[in-house]
Amino acid sequence: MPKLLLNADMGESFGPWPMGMDHEVMPHVDLANVACGFHASDPDVMRMTLRLARKHGVRVGAHPAYPDLVGFGRRSMACSAEEIENLVLYQLGALSGLCRAEGVDLVYVKPHGALYNDMAREPEIMSAVMRAIVSFDAALPLMTMATRDTSAASRIAKQHGVILWFEAFADRAYDGEGRLVSRREPGAVHHDPDVIVDQAVRIARGQPLSASDGSELVLAADTLCVHGDNPESIAAVKSIRQALEALDEEHC
Amino acid sequence: MPKLLLNADMGESFGPWPMGMDHEVMPHVDLANVACGFHASDPDVMRMTLRLARKHGVRVGAHPAYPDLVGFGRRSMACSAEEIENLVLYQLGALSGLCRAEGVDLVYVKPHGALYNDMAREPEIMSAVMRAIVSFDAALPLMTMATRDTSAASRIAKQHGVILWFEAFADRAYDGEGRLVSRREPGAVHHDPDVIVDQAVRIARGQPLSASDGSELVLAADTLCVHGDNPESIAAVKSIRQALEALDEEHC
Amino acid sequence: MPKLLLNADMGESFGPWPMGMDHEVMPHVDLANVACGFHASDPDVMRMTLRLARKHGVRVGAHPAYPDLVGFGRRSMACSAEEIENLVLYQLGALSGLCRAEGVDLVYVKPHGALYNDMAREPEIMSAVMRAIVSFDAALPLMTMATRDTSAASRIAKQHGVILWFEAFADRAYDGEGRLVSRREPGAVHHDPDVIVDQAVRIARGQPLSASDGSELVLAADTLCVHGDNPESIAAVKSIRQALEALDEEHC
Amino acid sequence: MPKLLLNADMGESFGPWPMGMDHEVMPHVDLANVACGFHASDPDVMRMTLRLARKHGVRVGAHPAYPDLVGFGRRSMACSAEEIENLVLYQLGALSGLCRAEGVDLVYVKPHGALYNDMAREPEIMSAVMRAIVSFDAALPLMTMATRDTSAASRIAKQHGVILWFEAFADRAYDGEGRLVSRREPGAVHHDPDVIVDQAVRIARGQPLSASDGSELVLAADTLCVHGDNPESIAAVKSIRQALEALDEEHC
Repeated sequence: MPKLLLNADMGESFGPWPMGMDHEVMPHVDLANVACGFHASDPDVMRMTLRLARKHGVRVGAHPAYPDLVGFGRRSMACSAEEIENLVLYQLGALSGLCRAEGVDLVYVKPHGALYNDMAREPEIMSAVMRAIVSFDAALPLMTMATRDTSAASRIAKQHGVILWFEAFADRAYDGEGRLVSRREPGAVHHDPDVIVDQAVRIARGQPLSASDGSELVLAADTLCVHGDNPESIAAVKSIRQALEALDEEHC
Repeated sequence: MPKLLLNADMGESFGPWPMGMDHEVMPHVDLANVACGFHASDPDVMRMTLRLARKHGVRVGAHPAYPDLVGFGRRSMACSAEEIENLVLYQLGALSGLCRAEGVDLVYVKPHGALYNDMAREPEIMSAVMRAIVSFDAALPLMTMATRDTSAASRIAKQHGVILWFEAFADRAYDGEGRLVSRREPGAVHHDPDVIVDQAVRIARGQPLSASDGSELVLAADTLCVHGDNPESIAAVKSIRQALEALDEEHC
Repeated sequence: MPKLLLNADMGESFGPWPMGMDHEVMPHVDLANVACGFHASDPDVMRMTLRLARKHGVRVGAHPAYPDLVGFGRRSMACSAEEIENLVLYQLGALSGLCRAEGVDLVYVKPHGALYNDMAREPEIMSAVMRAIVSFDAALPLMTMATRDTSAASRIAKQHGVILWFEAFADRAYDGEGRLVSRREPGAVHHDPDVIVDQAVRIARGQPLSASDGSELVLAADTLCVHGDNPESIAAVKSIRQALEALDEEHC
Repeated sequence: MPKLLLNADMGESFGPWPMGMDHEVMPHVDLANVACGFHASDPDVMRMTLRLARKHGVRVGAHPAYPDLVGFGRRSMACSAEEIENLVLYQLGALSGLCRAEGVDLVYVKPHGALYNDMAREPEIMSAVMRAIVSFDAALPLMTMATRDTSAASRIAKQHGVILWFEAFADRAYDGEGRLVSRREPGAVHHDPDVIVDQAVRIARGQPLSASDGSELVLAADTLCVHGDNPESIAAVKSIRQALEALDEEHC
């Protein structure tokens, strides 16, 4: 059983506006998704985030987004496939420019917000993101949602020769297809730390979750998305980390 | 006598707004200064510009600027040295991201507009730009103004281990220190094609120009800035190119 | 028969990038749709455009858009109704600020690009735009598409107490519902000046057009959209203007 | 003795990024300087801020800035006088658009950050701001620094027919000319609440402060700048408010 890596969004401050508790969460994760200036971050924030990741030996991924700062990249935009390919290339490049100054490698790509969701829904958008990755560095894995049936994404990835890293969530309820239950539904977000840790451990072990339609759902996940927004989420990250480490030792 | 290279600003269109006659000027220059999205250009424009440069075998440089799109990077901004270092890194990276997709190398750096002028005046700003270059790729030359006395710039460049490419202008009058006469002064800009070509040839040959204070001015230049703004400037580029080629043959 | 007013998009230059032949088209139109800085224009361009409109006695409308400069407001964005209400208010206000300096009244509102299209399709978006108008100045008419059946738009307008100005196009083919045939279809755009003028006159007279499905289509239009993009479109505007003036005289 | 009004910068959140404790400070001030979208704020934030001001009966002023979001309007930019006039008009208009929706009047103007400082130093910039105000609404006072000698500003204001509101600071040391001691100097910022309240009371009473060069400094101030950044500054605002109210009662 390969280790389930913890990833968190980082470097989402912008100019005078801080966001997130990057200093608190960085020591406890494996992967830092670093914003590239289109939905958040700026060159100074990017550099400080990379320095922090290097200090803690955390691997760095690019977190490219639609060009929508005020909307934090959360609003879907009707960009063409070609526009998406090029704006991803721009952002991968920009972050890698700062990476060079900090001696850090860029090792994967996770689209942000609406681009992440649109990519999962639209094969043309996923292909555009993959074309950008292949042009930039074909060895970079692309992080996308683990769902019940990942064959469509896997087929597109195979066509482009791109490695997929499947991502799961410990603090969200899933529907029968393995998609996240909308935040507008009751019970969509888990708040009980025990429930969150239990879901993380089940995912790590490949054990089934209970989907919202009552079915059993097994998610084949490479990484778990965690959050550094506030003290509660930091506490959850630490608990998940402890539980996963206990699991690793169990298997030695 | 090394060849005097012709450089021109390119890729200065933005979104729906075209600028410049890149297709007309590209075949006649050696170096394309490609805007990086802060004063002009966008990911799509950058990509098309790189494709055009590759088609004509023109070498590509980054043309980073202050973050001032509406002001086209022409307005000085009180950025700190650290901000400048990081925004140059961001822009070098962004352009190099698109370069990878077009299989084009980024081979030099020419700051744009107010950043170019501020760098020439402020050693701290020149150092900041050089720190960015050294972090990104220490082999990239930095283009800066050829003046009568370039010892200050050369000293800073030596400290950082950065190669300088000195740039001269064929269509501008120089003052006694070898600085450009302000456009607000009469006679600051040459319009007569013969005068422009003559000045280009003098610079290529290392022959003195006549400065505005009547003194003789020898500029040691590696490259000549030309423009692709309009049919007149395209015609001037062609005439300069012909004259320089005749000069090269003369020396064979 | 009320006069069919000619409207054109104006003030779409941005910073150093000119767009459109505002000086050539302004003398021939009744209504200038002035960009407000979100898809095009800047404070200096807005002011010059207002000055030009005042000089020619052309009435000024606001042309608000999604916040997408690089995409020229042509890409649909998933903004909430509340966001749309507020960004329209912001843009109406901004333009009216410049209007005060030029002694010009703001007299109508025409959303731009994707916002114009989304508003026609989504009653929630149309309501959001209308709420903004009512808050700002309930006397300002809202310009929207004339189609075969405008009852839905009229109903929403009545609820909000907003006046609608219906807009038609002389250079575009219509489908059976009175919507524009997509530009991707053959025959979607008329290029023959005689066809364009004939369609303008038919719309002005309330005579039926021939829709793409062969049906007769009567459009009840208050205004006709014309373009100042290039010499051909300027010529078309002049021909339409002449034909409509002949029509007016005929009716005296 | 007219009442010394308390003013604070408000509405400086942007998109997903909160800034300032507007809800905590609003009940204790007289004047809210509302950001207009160029250095901070967005249409949604502006609207919420205006609603909050209305709820507490706080008068609203526009807080226009250079177009520099990432730099929070704190970096001087070499804008022309005409550009400044127009960008101030744009921002006054934009805020007043939102004001209409909340039934709030815009009653004064306070330039932000680098524009505030540049205006105090450059008569051309002060004139540009005043031209914008006169065009927009000549009755709006302009807030500027109270210094030892305000005759230059008063002369320019008189030429334009603009009312000045002079602003003083309770938590900053002054030099002999009545300018703020640079934050880089020791003792530039007062942290002791008693010192802050004492300075506020002295300013309200027209009593001299002790300048950094040992001289006595009387500042004729209409308003005192206070801050809602953090709990300490909120506490200071409350203490100043109490002290000033005691002073008012003393005079009844």
